[in-house]
Amino acid sequence: MSLRDEAAELDALDPLAGKRAEFDLDPEVSYLDGNSLGAPPRGVAPRMAQVIGEQWGGRLIRSWDEGWWDAPERIGDRIAPLVGAGPGQVVVGDSTTVNLFKAVVAAARLNPGRPEILVDAGTFPTDGYIAESAARMTGHSVRRVPVGALAAETDSRTAVVLVNHVDYVTGELHDLPGITAALHAAGAVVVWDLCHSVGAVPVPLDAAEVDLAVGCTYKFLNGGPGSPAFLYVARKWLADFDQPLTGWAGHADPFGMTPGYAGRAGISRGRTGTPDILSMLALDAALDVWRDVTIDQVRAKGLALGEFFLRCLDELVPGARVVTPASRGNQISVAWPDAKAAMGKLIARGVIGDFRPPEVLRFGLAGLYVRYADVLRAAEELRGLR
Amino acid sequence: MSLRDEAAELDALDPLAGKRAEFDLDPEVSYLDGNSLGAPPRGVAPRMAQVIGEQWGGRLIRSWDEGWWDAPERIGDRIAPLVGAGPGQVVVGDSTTVNLFKAVVAAARLNPGRPEILVDAGTFPTDGYIAESAARMTGHSVRRVPVGALAAETDSRTAVVLVNHVDYVTGELHDLPGITAALHAAGAVVVWDLCHSVGAVPVPLDAAEVDLAVGCTYKFLNGGPGSPAFLYVARKWLADFDQPLTGWAGHADPFGMTPGYAGRAGISRGRTGTPDILSMLALDAALDVWRDVTIDQVRAKGLALGEFFLRCLDELVPGARVVTPASRGNQISVAWPDAKAAMGKLIARGVIGDFRPPEVLRFGLAGLYVRYADVLRAAEELRGLR
Repeated sequence: MSLRDEAAELDALDPLAGKRAEFDLDPEVSYLDGNSLGAPPRGVAPRMAQVIGEQWGGRLIRSWDEGWWDAPERIGDRIAPLVGAGPGQVVVGDSTTVNLFKAVVAAARLNPGRPEILVDAGTFPTDGYIAESAARMTGHSVRRVPVGALAAETDSRTAVVLVNHVDYVTGELHDLPGITAALHAAGAVVVWDLCHSVGAVPVPLDAAEVDLAVGCTYKFLNGGPGSPAFLYVARKWLADFDQPLTGWAGHADPFGMTPGYAGRAGISRGRTGTPDILSMLALDAALDVWRDVTIDQVRAKGLALGEFFLRCLDELVPGARVVTPASRGNQISVAWPDAKAAMGKLIARGVIGDFRPPEVLRFGLAGLYVRYADVLRAAEELRGLR
Repeated sequence: MSLRDEAAELDALDPLAGKRAEFDLDPEVSYLDGNSLGAPPRGVAPRMAQVIGEQWGGRLIRSWDEGWWDAPERIGDRIAPLVGAGPGQVVVGDSTTVNLFKAVVAAARLNPGRPEILVDAGTFPTDGYIAESAARMTGHSVRRVPVGALAAETDSRTAVVLVNHVDYVTGELHDLPGITAALHAAGAVVVWDLCHSVGAVPVPLDAAEVDLAVGCTYKFLNGGPGSPAFLYVARKWLADFDQPLTGWAGHADPFGMTPGYAGRAGISRGRTGTPDILSMLALDAALDVWRDVTIDQVRAKGLALGEFFLRCLDELVPGARVVTPASRGNQISVAWPDAKAAMGKLIARGVIGDFRPPEVLRFGLAGLYVRYADVLRAAEELRGLR
């Protein structure tokens, strides 16, 4: 059977094939960049029209009491099952970077007397920048350590370890339960960055006893460009979670307008300023696509897409340097000469992935809308670049 | 002439009367809460539909290079004339609270060796909370001082003073140039909170040599609920502006993905995480209503609305305890017994203002859409509550 026939058969048999119709995607485009910006669910546009017209326009300020004020916790509870969390442990708002600052500072405060913060050496840049800034303000030093060496390098000097669940360049999936347990054994508080795993890979936060986590909603959760991030706090830390961006929206009595800060009980103390309602409710609408699918189904599809893509590469682009290891999240990364220009050509031909320095082509495999035909086409177009 | 006839005449002669048609407002509602949440400009809904459908849906990830990435600076430059700033000094993004943290920490770093941060005693709560958190992390102490005493209390111990331009409860407008000059004379770095003045009152930031400022866009700029805030940095401080939320979006080479943080030259180093595009571009659309009006026109209308409202109160609700002084921003505040319940009754009757503890009714006078008939109606309904 040819790869084309095989792709057609795989698409025909795909139990998630019908989900693609829930996204507003040009059928001529093979969109393999959902690991950077998820595609728009069709429900977002009408929801925005309703929020602007009926809620903001029709009810004006009254909408704050009619679902707006509590949206960060309500939407957090919708994300919770995707990251293995119970209700009341996830709150939505602010950017990933801002939440990383909250999480790293709060983690350091949970573990006083230890002078060091470790960051995985392959981290997405913003995590490292924020760890440095937090460390400067809390009196810690920062050391970058390859994920494989984190367990060995964590000791009684280590206050906090910040680790990315999936490496944004290579797509490697790290062993969240195993690493968490090893770091806990050395007494560290562990913060996971879930940006490249949430919505693609099951994330067992509660089961693995993760302390704190931060994740992005505009990649595999399709919340829209720059949509608000989320923050997870383990139940055992909720009472002691002492984050630095102590805004009025996280106050125990926000409308009491009292001069002293007192964080609200529970995950709400992770809130900072007035919730950004348009983006927040766009995300809310985007999460509706999860109504009838599980993260396990999406994970299975992502793995199968990856297997098929690797076979297509083997056959059509023999010798292509795949840098993604067997333990992978939901992207396949290929080292390629002059990768930036190469990706420009692929995009011009309707295969949209992206490029990361120095020479990596990334292909994201969002199971909710990527077709087997799309990954075959990516391999075919790559062959054409040789 | 009766007050009703007078209101009709004032509305008929109002040079801004036509602007109300640019907002999606129920004609039966008298909306006097634009100091809390501005009304929706009609251009926002179609712009959102276009951003979601054509940009996110049609161009997908490519839109980042087609106007999204630079939106924070571009929209900042649109706000600049409203706050007396030149281009390249205002950047949009994050909440007011998050920007206050950036500004207060950066201000403290600009003025080392001084142990104290002063906050105006009547500040909106979040400013005080953030000043406390920033001080905890930078080793400062915080003292709350009435605005009238700030000049006397600022001395060689004072690193930073954080002042609200308009008091959110009383509506008092503080003397920004005079206070800034007095605090500068004592060597303090001055941060102004413009939340209740921007879009209502001319703000001469450059002329008054203000150091840093933060403002809200969802009140008199009508950006939508929780829309992104803005940050202003004086030109002389741009090179030394050293803010703590050092995210990748403020990096000199964000897509270089280098491990060390280096802030981009200019106002861009005020950026933190990935810009929240839906909310950002809703604000962009909302700013279109300023195309053919000046802040001086809006200020004149706001003052005239206030004058008329005060006369209506005098005549219809004699003895009403107006707590707004002669130097006012763009709201009239009235102390009222059981104010919370009273406001509920007004709202039920179609006059929407709001309530602030312990006993204040606030009536915002957004010159772009409030009619003289609206403030008369507010006074009439207040009379009915007696």
